[in-house]
Amino acid sequence: MANTFGQILKLTIFGESHGAAIGAVLDGLPAGEAISWDKVAAEMTRRAPGRNLMSTQRQEKDMVEIQSGFFDGHTTGTALCGLIRNKDQHSGDYSQLKTIMRPGHADYSGYIRYGGHNDYRGGGHFSGRLTATLVFAGAVAKQILERRGIVIGAHIGSIAAVQDSRFNPMGETPERLRKLAKQTLPVLEPEKASQMAAAVEEARSQENSVGGTIEVMILGLPAGIGTPFFESVESRLSHMLFSVPAVKGIEFGQGFSFADMTGDTSNDAMYYDNKEVKTRTNHNGGVLGGITNGMPVVFRVVIKPTPSIGLPQESVDMETGKDKELRITGRHDPCIVPRAVPVIEAVAAWAILDLWLAAGTFR
Amino acid sequence: MANTFGQILKLTIFGESHGAAIGAVLDGLPAGEAISWDKVAAEMTRRAPGRNLMSTQRQEKDMVEIQSGFFDGHTTGTALCGLIRNKDQHSGDYSQLKTIMRPGHADYSGYIRYGGHNDYRGGGHFSGRLTATLVFAGAVAKQILERRGIVIGAHIGSIAAVQDSRFNPMGETPERLRKLAKQTLPVLEPEKASQMAAAVEEARSQENSVGGTIEVMILGLPAGIGTPFFESVESRLSHMLFSVPAVKGIEFGQGFSFADMTGDTSNDAMYYDNKEVKTRTNHNGGVLGGITNGMPVVFRVVIKPTPSIGLPQESVDMETGKDKELRITGRHDPCIVPRAVPVIEAVAAWAILDLWLAAGTFR
Amino acid sequence: MANTFGQILKLTIFGESHGAAIGAVLDGLPAGEAISWDKVAAEMTRRAPGRNLMSTQRQEKDMVEIQSGFFDGHTTGTALCGLIRNKDQHSGDYSQLKTIMRPGHADYSGYIRYGGHNDYRGGGHFSGRLTATLVFAGAVAKQILERRGIVIGAHIGSIAAVQDSRFNPMGETPERLRKLAKQTLPVLEPEKASQMAAAVEEARSQENSVGGTIEVMILGLPAGIGTPFFESVESRLSHMLFSVPAVKGIEFGQGFSFADMTGDTSNDAMYYDNKEVKTRTNHNGGVLGGITNGMPVVFRVVIKPTPSIGLPQESVDMETGKDKELRITGRHDPCIVPRAVPVIEAVAAWAILDLWLAAGTFR
Amino acid sequence: MANTFGQILKLTIFGESHGAAIGAVLDGLPAGEAISWDKVAAEMTRRAPGRNLMSTQRQEKDMVEIQSGFFDGHTTGTALCGLIRNKDQHSGDYSQLKTIMRPGHADYSGYIRYGGHNDYRGGGHFSGRLTATLVFAGAVAKQILERRGIVIGAHIGSIAAVQDSRFNPMGETPERLRKLAKQTLPVLEPEKASQMAAAVEEARSQENSVGGTIEVMILGLPAGIGTPFFESVESRLSHMLFSVPAVKGIEFGQGFSFADMTGDTSNDAMYYDNKEVKTRTNHNGGVLGGITNGMPVVFRVVIKPTPSIGLPQESVDMETGKDKELRITGRHDPCIVPRAVPVIEAVAAWAILDLWLAAGTFR
Repeated sequence: MANTFGQILKLTIFGESHGAAIGAVLDGLPAGEAISWDKVAAEMTRRAPGRNLMSTQRQEKDMVEIQSGFFDGHTTGTALCGLIRNKDQHSGDYSQLKTIMRPGHADYSGYIRYGGHNDYRGGGHFSGRLTATLVFAGAVAKQILERRGIVIGAHIGSIAAVQDSRFNPMGETPERLRKLAKQTLPVLEPEKASQMAAAVEEARSQENSVGGTIEVMILGLPAGIGTPFFESVESRLSHMLFSVPAVKGIEFGQGFSFADMTGDTSNDAMYYDNKEVKTRTNHNGGVLGGITNGMPVVFRVVIKPTPSIGLPQESVDMETGKDKELRITGRHDPCIVPRAVPVIEAVAAWAILDLWLAAGTFR
Repeated sequence: MANTFGQILKLTIFGESHGAAIGAVLDGLPAGEAISWDKVAAEMTRRAPGRNLMSTQRQEKDMVEIQSGFFDGHTTGTALCGLIRNKDQHSGDYSQLKTIMRPGHADYSGYIRYGGHNDYRGGGHFSGRLTATLVFAGAVAKQILERRGIVIGAHIGSIAAVQDSRFNPMGETPERLRKLAKQTLPVLEPEKASQMAAAVEEARSQENSVGGTIEVMILGLPAGIGTPFFESVESRLSHMLFSVPAVKGIEFGQGFSFADMTGDTSNDAMYYDNKEVKTRTNHNGGVLGGITNGMPVVFRVVIKPTPSIGLPQESVDMETGKDKELRITGRHDPCIVPRAVPVIEAVAAWAILDLWLAAGTFR
Repeated sequence: MANTFGQILKLTIFGESHGAAIGAVLDGLPAGEAISWDKVAAEMTRRAPGRNLMSTQRQEKDMVEIQSGFFDGHTTGTALCGLIRNKDQHSGDYSQLKTIMRPGHADYSGYIRYGGHNDYRGGGHFSGRLTATLVFAGAVAKQILERRGIVIGAHIGSIAAVQDSRFNPMGETPERLRKLAKQTLPVLEPEKASQMAAAVEEARSQENSVGGTIEVMILGLPAGIGTPFFESVESRLSHMLFSVPAVKGIEFGQGFSFADMTGDTSNDAMYYDNKEVKTRTNHNGGVLGGITNGMPVVFRVVIKPTPSIGLPQESVDMETGKDKELRITGRHDPCIVPRAVPVIEAVAAWAILDLWLAAGTFR
Repeated sequence: MANTFGQILKLTIFGESHGAAIGAVLDGLPAGEAISWDKVAAEMTRRAPGRNLMSTQRQEKDMVEIQSGFFDGHTTGTALCGLIRNKDQHSGDYSQLKTIMRPGHADYSGYIRYGGHNDYRGGGHFSGRLTATLVFAGAVAKQILERRGIVIGAHIGSIAAVQDSRFNPMGETPERLRKLAKQTLPVLEPEKASQMAAAVEEARSQENSVGGTIEVMILGLPAGIGTPFFESVESRLSHMLFSVPAVKGIEFGQGFSFADMTGDTSNDAMYYDNKEVKTRTNHNGGVLGGITNGMPVVFRVVIKPTPSIGLPQESVDMETGKDKELRITGRHDPCIVPRAVPVIEAVAAWAILDLWLAAGTFR
């Protein structure tokens, strides 16, 4: 079950950083959906490294080769498999990782889980590279949602100490959300981009890394999607979002700020706006009782600092059973928040499309 | 799928606040496990209302009547059903809720989801009362875990502006965790209990409500439980935790504080402690790459202020299609955080036992 | 997973023959469906013992007590739980079954599976009594299907050497299918009923038992339900049908007779009947490539002879580790085929409704 | 869900006959299992066309290219993806199939299911070619089972009117089962092979086709695998077996012959054979109450005649909405039973390994 998720829409991912290829099988897609592969490629590029100063200079070609499920310009309704080949990997660089565990990574927990048989090169299956498969799946789901008026956008909430504004929880314009996707550093306050870039550069110069937050908004979702309890919108979204490496927290609407609120302010007052029920505030982030209420869905995730840093670290050698200082070489993103933005959006798109299909009201 | 969750261990819950009964079917339990029903009753009592000043004075008898799956003092290995009857419900109190939607509740989203057919009395299926079924399931799972050295404990992290200390992420003693379960207001700093009680009383006197946070620790879990991506420990736990009404955020380890950290501090340095791999800090809350690393699992959830408040609120009447002021009568907890503590623990216990069973290393 | 099945429509069953109650949780039902409990009771009666000479004289009251999910005369859309209490069970009768394994029953395989902890009284969880929960679930599903023009009917294909005719695979009238449900021994050739009754009586007089077959027809299903491979109509139906104790084989359309056919006759020729695509024969039983083609769905199951017989049998005593002759006392149906008819129909109804809901075309 | 199956062991398949590639993702495999790719290739060859007179002369290279999940000679424990490229496909041959539906195929039901968007070339996703992915998955599972003493073998039970003997239900030797896999036409009575070949040749000469049956035996499975009701061994096996195109019936042990038996003979008498519980007969095919009892698992499936025949057939043209005679050109197997043998074995291997893993007793 580990690599497949979804109720109606099943996503199965596979691959390791230095294997032949990584990929995804998208099952349960509606038939007859036109998909623009250019748009998919654009999403892949948003995640790809080498796009800006903040990411590693390694060049990866994340071209998705469609193996099945697409014919005559449309989804067939049967499983769509996309393959992304791994190229120019220098496996030799990773030999020390066979037995020396990188702190903050899944090296040790994965070693125990799989009895030392997992592919350690470049993090193997645990590599952030696997998120390319999520972006691919999400890029397909996004187009199906967009066609029905659902728009998903995200911005960087913070990097290190640099904070961007929050989305207006009552809703941004679709145009503003779409425009964010075109920014190298998607922020609401333009001047924050350079400050964030500076913070990342400083971390890089110190062979260190920084983390941050991402805020997401989903516009246009009808009320009545999701179910109480185990298939709540929050359950489904969080389940999939915590699959993204480095995500360590998630909050919907006011999230942790609810702890300091009182009921009279945290409750979103309701009124009729021209025969449509709306709320005067959107503290609950568009979800009540696990079900959408027609207001924008808003959530925030935190991305921890990149665990791969150049500074020396205390570690252990599983072979010798002794402590061992580790110095990770090679190029690594000092901050993965910008590249995580399209990943988080993608996962949200997939989960939301699945929830909608499961609700039985998707047309 | 909405009411069933789990991979090996399936929990199915049912019921409405004012129906005949609520209940849970626990499927996939190991056979031959002795269960103390006194311990189960003790957990039920922790959640039950009327236990202290902070909760409503309604008296509910949350006696679990076992229907199946338990024989000769042990689990049979087949589905165990527990039924909790609803008694002395005054359905008449709820007539206005048929068409007037309570802000902050699932009334409107549920109305749309189920075409107005859901049971509106007392919140129906969306009622917090349903969490009694989760406590029941968790109370069974807890005993199975305890027998194998796994201890789960929780305290109130905050209520309104009153903050308790945090758990020592490197681990508390099992005794301390167990002792918390006996406190009416489980806090680490004893003096905070009365301050919290005062904050709740103030909210009550104003016909208002307050929220808070809960911190949970799981001790004794072996490394190697969970899987990367879609069945990560964080995915599974968060999926189930967001099933609990009023939970709007979750974070593991440092959670949102990771946003302000740098890699050299956020990475948990590793070393050998007498042939056992340990970390010098536990910022990652015992989970790396979705898999336990042998350190205590630590997470925090936020509980929003009780949406049922006595103050007048702007609302809508679905029948007339017009705005309508709503005044909720009856007794309501001005703060559900204390009663949510055993619910959160229970859900964690169930999810962890399922993860362990799925890992294939449970004995 | 053992006690829950379905994709959109989840059925969870629980209970043991001599426990407090057996029951079922029906999750994922469409909201707003009126359900006639009289019709449900009628289906329960069809399965109940004591209805005719062919079954045991024990009187069971299989009254279903609805606990949840039904309000104001309609399904709420949330989990519907029905409870059936066990009454007047004489547990003492079963003491020898604690360690002596009944041949043909699940006693031994269940003993090993559950380490001897399963409830042995009356077969416990493995008892045919559990099929009452299936009938209940199916009786609800049937009404939802009937409202949309789907009719499910079945007849006894054979008991011992007495063969009934086959359904006309091109379709029977809905009236004929409905009428069968009112017959004590539903057969197409009226004279076969008495012959079957005689064969059963002969088996009873010899303290022996007989088996038989059941043929099922589903009318009115639109084309396009089901999916290729793992969610084919045959996969889903067979999965659930093999859950029914004593079912040991299933075939769709011509089934095993296909082995002797040639392609030119086994292929169902196609033509337009007034703008509707039909086939001239229906050898494939309404399913091609796992998907309905609009023709009646036809399948057949075999029911093995009741394993509980009065004749002495060779068995083993798990306590002594020695061979032990077993003589089963008490009343037992010498043929369960008639009582299995409503069970098989019920399971088919449930599986078909789930398939339809999953197809996304249910309205 | 259509393309993923399994509880612990998840198989996801994808592809179309004339797309870029078909493939399978094997998730949940135990880590550290050595896999011989030569053995996998041998299984692929058993299914491949062009192996004997009875199948089409088209040459396919069903080479599996491993993309992930295998490292340093062992399974990693994470998802293993195998890709099989489609080569030398002459898509032009299939243009008439765009709108003219082949009787006995999924063309029409699939057209309706997917709104005419499915890939019609060579049957697309419904093509028997997809079974290569099942053989691949099964070939991996088989090796994991073999290492633990589980042997799966099968023979052709019949082709057209030519009947082979049945397996001795009490068990064949592992050697005999293994030897069958090396025969072009695996039969128990050697002389039947040529008779079957003759029957197939006759069908070919008449541009017609024939069907048959396959009998499978699984040796060495411990008692206690499977669960009652929805995860019974029969449920799981049948679910997956009905995924194989052309399978229209399945029976376990005596199967449909139970209809003519009496309880005293159909019950398998039990005895102690040197401290081990055995049965004197194995009418139940090794499964009681859905759980293995330690005796060989035996089942039989029926394969319908190949629907692709050269003879003219009545059909319909979805574009014109009129009847249309269809003449299928190109080479087609007049009998797919021999090629189905390794497919059925493979599916059984996969399902059994999953059942074992789910039982928690796999080591």
